[in-house]
Amino acid sequence: MLQGYKQPGQTDCCLIDEEFRGVKKLSSGTVLVIGGVAAGTKAAAKARRENPGLKIVVITKDRHVSYAGCGLPYYIGGIVQEEKELLVRQPEDFLLDHDIEIITGQEAVRIIPGEKAVMVKDLTTGELQKFFYDKLVLATGASPFIPSIKGKELANIFTVRAISDAAAVKRLLAGRNIQDAVVIGGGMIGLEVAENLSRLGVKTTLIELSPQILPSYDLDVALYVQNYLREKGLSILTGTAVTGFEDNGRGEVGAVLTGAGPVKADLAVLSIGVRPNVDLARECGIQLGPTGAIAVNKMMETSIKDIYAAGDCAENINLITGRPVWYPMGSTANKTGRVTGINVSAKENKDSLEGVLGTSIIKLFELNVAKTGLTEREAGKLGYDPETVLVPVPDRAHYYPGNRLIITKLVADRKSRRLLGGQIYGEGAVDKPVDILATAITLEASVDQLAKLDLAYAPPFSPAMSSTIVAANVMINKLAGKFKGTSPLSLKEKLAAGAVLVDVRTAEEYFVRAIPGSINIPLRELALHAGSLDKNKEIILACKVGLRSYTAFLKLKSFGFNNLSILEGGITAYPFETE
Amino acid sequence: MLQGYKQPGQTDCCLIDEEFRGVKKLSSGTVLVIGGVAAGTKAAAKARRENPGLKIVVITKDRHVSYAGCGLPYYIGGIVQEEKELLVRQPEDFLLDHDIEIITGQEAVRIIPGEKAVMVKDLTTGELQKFFYDKLVLATGASPFIPSIKGKELANIFTVRAISDAAAVKRLLAGRNIQDAVVIGGGMIGLEVAENLSRLGVKTTLIELSPQILPSYDLDVALYVQNYLREKGLSILTGTAVTGFEDNGRGEVGAVLTGAGPVKADLAVLSIGVRPNVDLARECGIQLGPTGAIAVNKMMETSIKDIYAAGDCAENINLITGRPVWYPMGSTANKTGRVTGINVSAKENKDSLEGVLGTSIIKLFELNVAKTGLTEREAGKLGYDPETVLVPVPDRAHYYPGNRLIITKLVADRKSRRLLGGQIYGEGAVDKPVDILATAITLEASVDQLAKLDLAYAPPFSPAMSSTIVAANVMINKLAGKFKGTSPLSLKEKLAAGAVLVDVRTAEEYFVRAIPGSINIPLRELALHAGSLDKNKEIILACKVGLRSYTAFLKLKSFGFNNLSILEGGITAYPFETE
Repeated sequence: MLQGYKQPGQTDCCLIDEEFRGVKKLSSGTVLVIGGVAAGTKAAAKARRENPGLKIVVITKDRHVSYAGCGLPYYIGGIVQEEKELLVRQPEDFLLDHDIEIITGQEAVRIIPGEKAVMVKDLTTGELQKFFYDKLVLATGASPFIPSIKGKELANIFTVRAISDAAAVKRLLAGRNIQDAVVIGGGMIGLEVAENLSRLGVKTTLIELSPQILPSYDLDVALYVQNYLREKGLSILTGTAVTGFEDNGRGEVGAVLTGAGPVKADLAVLSIGVRPNVDLARECGIQLGPTGAIAVNKMMETSIKDIYAAGDCAENINLITGRPVWYPMGSTANKTGRVTGINVSAKENKDSLEGVLGTSIIKLFELNVAKTGLTEREAGKLGYDPETVLVPVPDRAHYYPGNRLIITKLVADRKSRRLLGGQIYGEGAVDKPVDILATAITLEASVDQLAKLDLAYAPPFSPAMSSTIVAANVMINKLAGKFKGTSPLSLKEKLAAGAVLVDVRTAEEYFVRAIPGSINIPLRELALHAGSLDKNKEIILACKVGLRSYTAFLKLKSFGFNNLSILEGGITAYPFETE
Repeated sequence: MLQGYKQPGQTDCCLIDEEFRGVKKLSSGTVLVIGGVAAGTKAAAKARRENPGLKIVVITKDRHVSYAGCGLPYYIGGIVQEEKELLVRQPEDFLLDHDIEIITGQEAVRIIPGEKAVMVKDLTTGELQKFFYDKLVLATGASPFIPSIKGKELANIFTVRAISDAAAVKRLLAGRNIQDAVVIGGGMIGLEVAENLSRLGVKTTLIELSPQILPSYDLDVALYVQNYLREKGLSILTGTAVTGFEDNGRGEVGAVLTGAGPVKADLAVLSIGVRPNVDLARECGIQLGPTGAIAVNKMMETSIKDIYAAGDCAENINLITGRPVWYPMGSTANKTGRVTGINVSAKENKDSLEGVLGTSIIKLFELNVAKTGLTEREAGKLGYDPETVLVPVPDRAHYYPGNRLIITKLVADRKSRRLLGGQIYGEGAVDKPVDILATAITLEASVDQLAKLDLAYAPPFSPAMSSTIVAANVMINKLAGKFKGTSPLSLKEKLAAGAVLVDVRTAEEYFVRAIPGSINIPLRELALHAGSLDKNKEIILACKVGLRSYTAFLKLKSFGFNNLSILEGGITAYPFETE
C-alpha cells in the first residue's frame, strides 16, 4: 500500500500497484495538485518523469482535464469539429501511463498549511475529505469576470472558458435561428469568438469599453485591426459601456443595453477578461502580488513553504522591466507547470523561469496580429525613451505566389538602442517574426544586432531581406536622424494644421486607393513639381510601404526642404478608411 | 557637368541634370561598382541614400540587373510564371529613381589600383575604356563550376545561374517532348531544379558525387530528405561520379555517363556548385582568403585601400567559430551590399557585418528543410563536445487543421551548454523555428535560455509548447543524463549486434507502419511484458515522436533495466524505408 493521502473509505491506487507489481516504489512524498488543465497536468506529468517514486494526485472541479482552452473559439466556429479533439488526455490516461491519480468533481475548499492538508469537497456527494500533501501545487487557473449588471442571469448569455461553455454556444447555434450576436470585450478571446460567430454567418457586434480593441496593443495597430474587421462585416463599438441585458420576453437575452443604445442579440458572449482564481490561496495566507495573482518566485514557490503556484493563477515577472505582471497564457502555463513539476520532485537542480514578455498572437479571418515585449505606450510610461518604426515588407519573395505584406512596428530605446518590443500584423506570416523578436528581446539584442541576423532565405519563405531585418534597418536610419516619421495617428491633426500630404506613388496606384486629403506627385515627377510645394509648410511624404517616400524625402531635402517627414508604414499601414 | 569618370565620347548624365535642374550636386567622389545583381545594386542604392552627392556607376556584363537568382528554379517549374517577375528593377529605374548609372554589356578586365581605375571592355564593340573611381566595389558574384568532362559542350546541358539559363531550359521543355532529365549535384539549387522538373512531369534523376545529398547537412537529415524525395518519384544516385555525356546523335545530350552506368537524359542540368568570381581581384593583387573567395574585413574592405567586396565573391566569417567561410547566399549578399554602400559613402559611423551562420532553407515538394549554425559533424570536427537531439513536434496545435510534424535536430556543446546549431525538417513550417535558432545562436543563447523563450502561442500558429521549446527541454534532459539516445543511423548496426528494438506504440499504429526488425509492446502493456525482455541485451525504445518511449525508458529503468536507450525522433524521423 502506498503512502496514504486520504481518509479511509475510498479506493486507492491498487490499479497502479497492479501495473507496477514486483517493482519497489519509493514513497518519497505526495504531490497534491489542485487544478487539472494545462499547468496542473503538466506539473504532475513532469513530476512523475522526474521521480517514479512520488505519489501524485490531481484534484479538479471539472469533469474534463488537460483540455485545450485556447481551442474553444475554433470549436464554436467549427474549425475544430469534435469536442474530443480538444481533450488532450483523459483522467484514466494519467493513471495508466503515468501513475497519476486524477480525481474529478472535487473542489478544494480550504488549505491548512499547518497540517499540510487540503479540505476537499466532493461535488457529487457534498462530502468533505482531508487530503495531505508533502508538496502542494496550486493550478487553480482563472475565471471569466462577470460584471454585476442587470439581466446577466438571462438565458443565452455565455462565457467561453470551459468546454461546456463552448458546447452550450454550439448547441444554441445548432438548435435555433440565431441572427444577431453580441460579444462583449475586445481582447483576444472576445475577438476570436466574434470572428468565429461572424464566419458562421451570424451578424456579430463587438462591444469594448476602452477606446480600442486589443487593449494590450498600441492604438495604431488596434485601429488597423478594427478597420480590417469592419471591412469583414463585424460591427465594432469601442468606448462603449454595457449597462445591462434586455429580456426577449422568454427569459432569454434579446438585446444588449449600452451607453450608445440597445444592440439586438439572440446570443451574448461575455469576454471582458479573466481574473486569477486566488481565493484558496488568499484565505490560507499565501501572499498575492500587485497584479492580484499569486506571488511566486522564479521557482514558482509561493510565500508558504512547500506550496507552489503555476499557470493562470500565478503572477509572472516581465523580463524587460523586472516587474510583476500577469499574462494568463497557455504557453506560460505549460512552462510554469513544467518548472513546478521539476521543483516539487527534485532535491537539487531546481528549475526556474526568469520571466515572460507578454508575447501574444491572434488570427482574425486572414489577418494575423502578434506582439512581444513592450508597446510604445508601455515603454513611454516606464520611462524609456522609445523610438518606433512601422514597416511593411512582404513575408516571402515578392515574386513567389501567395506572398503578403506584413507590417512590423518596432519599439526600441533611443539611448541603449535595445529592442524593447514589436507588434506585427498583416495577412502574411507574423508568427515567425514575432518569435524572432521575442528571442532577440530575451537575449537583450540591440537593433543593430537585429539588422544583421542570418535568417533563413529562400523565395517560398522570405524575401532576401526579411521583414525583421528591413524594420531594424529603418529603425537604425531613424535613430541616426536620417528621416523623420509621422504616425498615421497624428496625420489628420497635422493636415488640419496645414501640413501637405504628398503621395509619391504612381498615378495608377493613387487612382486605386488614396488617403483622404493627399495630393499625388509621383516620385519620378517630384523634381519637376517640387517648385510648386511650399517650403514653409510641413510636407508629409507617403507611398505604399515607405521606401519611395524615403527616396522622396532625401530628394526634397537635397532641394532645400527642411520641414519634411514620412508617413510611417505608408498607405499599407494606414488604419483608417481610404478613398 | 558632373565629375568625369570616362574617356570622352559617350553620353553622360544629362538626363539626371535635367531631372535635378536647379539643384547643386556635390561631386564628393565616384563610386564604381562591378556587378549588377544583388550585392552590387544594393551597395549602389544604399550609397545613394547615404550621400546624394556621390557619382555612382555600376557596370555589368549581363543584360539584366537586380534579378532574383534564387527564383530561377521556380521559374523553370512555372511557379513563377513570368521572367519579368524576377526582375526587381531595370537599369533605367536606377537612373530615374536613384541617379545611379548602370552600364550593361561591359566587362571589367583589369583593375589598376595605382591609378584607381578599371579597364572595361564593351562587349558589343570590343572597345576598351578606363573608368576611374574613388571607391571601388567588387560584386562580381559566383559562377557555376563546370567540370572538364567529355561531352560537356553538347546541346541541352545547362547550368542555372542567370535568367537566360532558366529561359533556355524553359524553351527546351516547351518545344520538345523531354522525358528524362538528369540533375548533377545534390546541393540546394540542384535539388530545387530537380523538384521543379519532376513536378512538371519529367522523369528526373539526381546524381551526387558525395555519399549524401545536401552535403552541408548532417547525414540523418539528408537521408530523411532523400527517402522523402524517392517516395515522391525522384531517382537519386549518391556516391556516384559523372564521367561524361553521351551524344544522342544530333549533337545533343542523350545520356549522362556515370560510374554506375549511363542514365538516359534529354536534358541535363549541371549544378555541382558555384565558385566565387575572383580573377579580377586576384590579378590586381587583392588578397584571397582560405576559402578562395576575396578576403574582407568586417567593413567589407579588401586588402587594397578603397576597394571593397560584397556578395558572393567575398568571404564571410562564421559567427560561432570566428573562422573564414564562404556561404554564397542572397540574404548575405544583400547585407554585405548594404554595409558596403554605407562604408563607401560614410566618413564616420561605418557599418560592419560580424559574421554569418550559414543559415539555409529549401522547399522540396511539401517538405521543408532548414539549418543554421553548426551541424553535428562540423561541431565534432571543430573540437566541440556536441550533444544532439532529434525531436518531432507539430507545428501548430495538434487539433488545429493542417498541423504537421516537424523534426528539430539541435546541436549543443556539452560543456558550455551553448546552442551550436539546428536542422529542422518536415512538411510543416520550419522557417520559423530555424530563425528562432539563428537568433538564439547569434546572441549566444544556452539551451536553458532557449527552453524558456516566451514564443507566440495560439492554436493556428503553434502548440502551447512550441517545437523549439520541446526540443530544448529534451536536450536539457539528455545533458542531465535522464535518458540515452540511439541515432537512427546506428540502429541497424546495433540490431545486428543483438540489440532489441521495442516499439511502444499501440498495436494499431504498429500495424500501419513499423521499423524493420522491431517488436511491438504497447506502453500500457510494458509492465506486463517487461519480464519477457532480456536485461542483458540493449533495449532500444521507439514510438512516434519520443515521448512515449521516454515514459517507457523511465518505467523499464525503474524495473531494473540498465542497458536502455530511446530511438531518437521515433519512427517520424526514421530516414529509411519502413514496413
